[in-house]
Amino acid sequence: MTKSGKAYLIGAGPGDPRLLTLRAAEVLGQADVVLVDDLVHPGVLAHARTRRIIHVGKRSQRRSFPQELATHTLLAYVRGGSIVARVKGGDPFVFGRGGEEALALAEARLPFEIIPGVTAAVGAAAYAGIPLTHRGVAASVAFVTGHREAGATQRIDADADTIVVYMCQRTIRDIAHELLERGKSPMTCVALVRGASWPTQEVFTGYLDELATLDDEWYAALDPELPTIAIIGAVASYADQLAWQDARPIPIASLRVPRLRVVAGGRR
Amino acid sequence: MTKSGKAYLIGAGPGDPRLLTLRAAEVLGQADVVLVDDLVHPGVLAHARTRRIIHVGKRSQRRSFPQELATHTLLAYVRGGSIVARVKGGDPFVFGRGGEEALALAEARLPFEIIPGVTAAVGAAAYAGIPLTHRGVAASVAFVTGHREAGATQRIDADADTIVVYMCQRTIRDIAHELLERGKSPMTCVALVRGASWPTQEVFTGYLDELATLDDEWYAALDPELPTIAIIGAVASYADQLAWQDARPIPIASLRVPRLRVVAGGRR
Repeated sequence: MTKSGKAYLIGAGPGDPRLLTLRAAEVLGQADVVLVDDLVHPGVLAHARTRRIIHVGKRSQRRSFPQELATHTLLAYVRGGSIVARVKGGDPFVFGRGGEEALALAEARLPFEIIPGVTAAVGAAAYAGIPLTHRGVAASVAFVTGHREAGATQRIDADADTIVVYMCQRTIRDIAHELLERGKSPMTCVALVRGASWPTQEVFTGYLDELATLDDEWYAALDPELPTIAIIGAVASYADQLAWQDARPIPIASLRVPRLRVVAGGRR
Repeated sequence: MTKSGKAYLIGAGPGDPRLLTLRAAEVLGQADVVLVDDLVHPGVLAHARTRRIIHVGKRSQRRSFPQELATHTLLAYVRGGSIVARVKGGDPFVFGRGGEEALALAEARLPFEIIPGVTAAVGAAAYAGIPLTHRGVAASVAFVTGHREAGATQRIDADADTIVVYMCQRTIRDIAHELLERGKSPMTCVALVRGASWPTQEVFTGYLDELATLDDEWYAALDPELPTIAIIGAVASYADQLAWQDARPIPIASLRVPRLRVVAGGRR
């Protein structure tokens, strides 16, 4: 008798492994195989009992692991009778390509379950102290991606009170320009959150026109492996008041001038 | 020496208590007092060790517990030195009024922390099998609320590829009309998710014009205490293919005709 396999598409949240759901931790403990994307905190994998942990992210092993191969690997293990935990950063159904994998599983008539996670926008907002909606200030919020397919023209939704741009470390300047051209005020408040909920999280606050003219050197140095999220809208102004972590927001304006460095006297 | 109080604004997720985060469960176990909103699954409160669990939802004890009183109670306990777990359905910063409570805490110079949760849209999408974004189909998603202040005119963001309307059990027909007037196609796919991730979850699928002309009797009978979420956009069409729970989606069209009832023979 063949053991019946099953796939679990799991959202691991934005970074901090304590933001994993109880259900995800439970399934990780039962899985025979774990297929994990980039940008998942190693602490998440500590819940797995299996040692078959395969990194299928695009940047795994310093080579490209294309989506098709990740899906193929997933299906092969489930067909073989394995309980597979397919772990993604954030939520599988919000810029997580979980829909493609779920469709492949459904078409192959293989059983699966979706375990939602804290999506990056929601995690970044919480850890930066920025309510995405706020009474009298923002009654709607839109999530868009800064990641663009080669040659694709994609219009950014400029209608929502709050706009969150995922994975914008290579495109946020262009996107800010586009929003200005479409009539958003240059004085719209913005926050950039790098590495949301990771120990290295940094929050930068300022205005839309400052985002459109980010310092070249600083912008070019943004680490593509450390995802950056932009929160655009009046709510971003709360970051200064509601920052509850030790680090305070850094003004984007300060990035335009050579950054002051505190030189410690004596030896390190 | 006075013990130092602290507030934790906690998102409990959409319903299923297994969608609680590890961090939220940990804090619930440490809290001296739990202040809990409506629409939080009782299973979430099982993680609390304290017996001081106070229901501050608007529908608690069959009377109104206004937001101001909830905030006042929160501040009073923290000032008194208590560790307070303030538990909300979904996420505190997405239609959760967490911003107001965080501002009150910040203004009173009381320490607090935000623990994000799986917001209702993301939970509903996962449990209904609807990717909110999908390659080549939906590159953006907007969250709006169907709950309207008396007399307020609020324009629904119609720009995003996927629109999710929270708490729409009293307004979805009007909202569907508004989207049609603003040029959305009558054949736009839609899904209604009632009680997302609760054991009683129901998913209804159809088209925008069907939403605008929902059967009077059925619409009037929608339980305002069981939140309904609408997912509007091409991705809603995946609900039939990707439903991974036992219950299959019910066509909205079937609500227009007297519903067939299976009459069981013999005694119940």
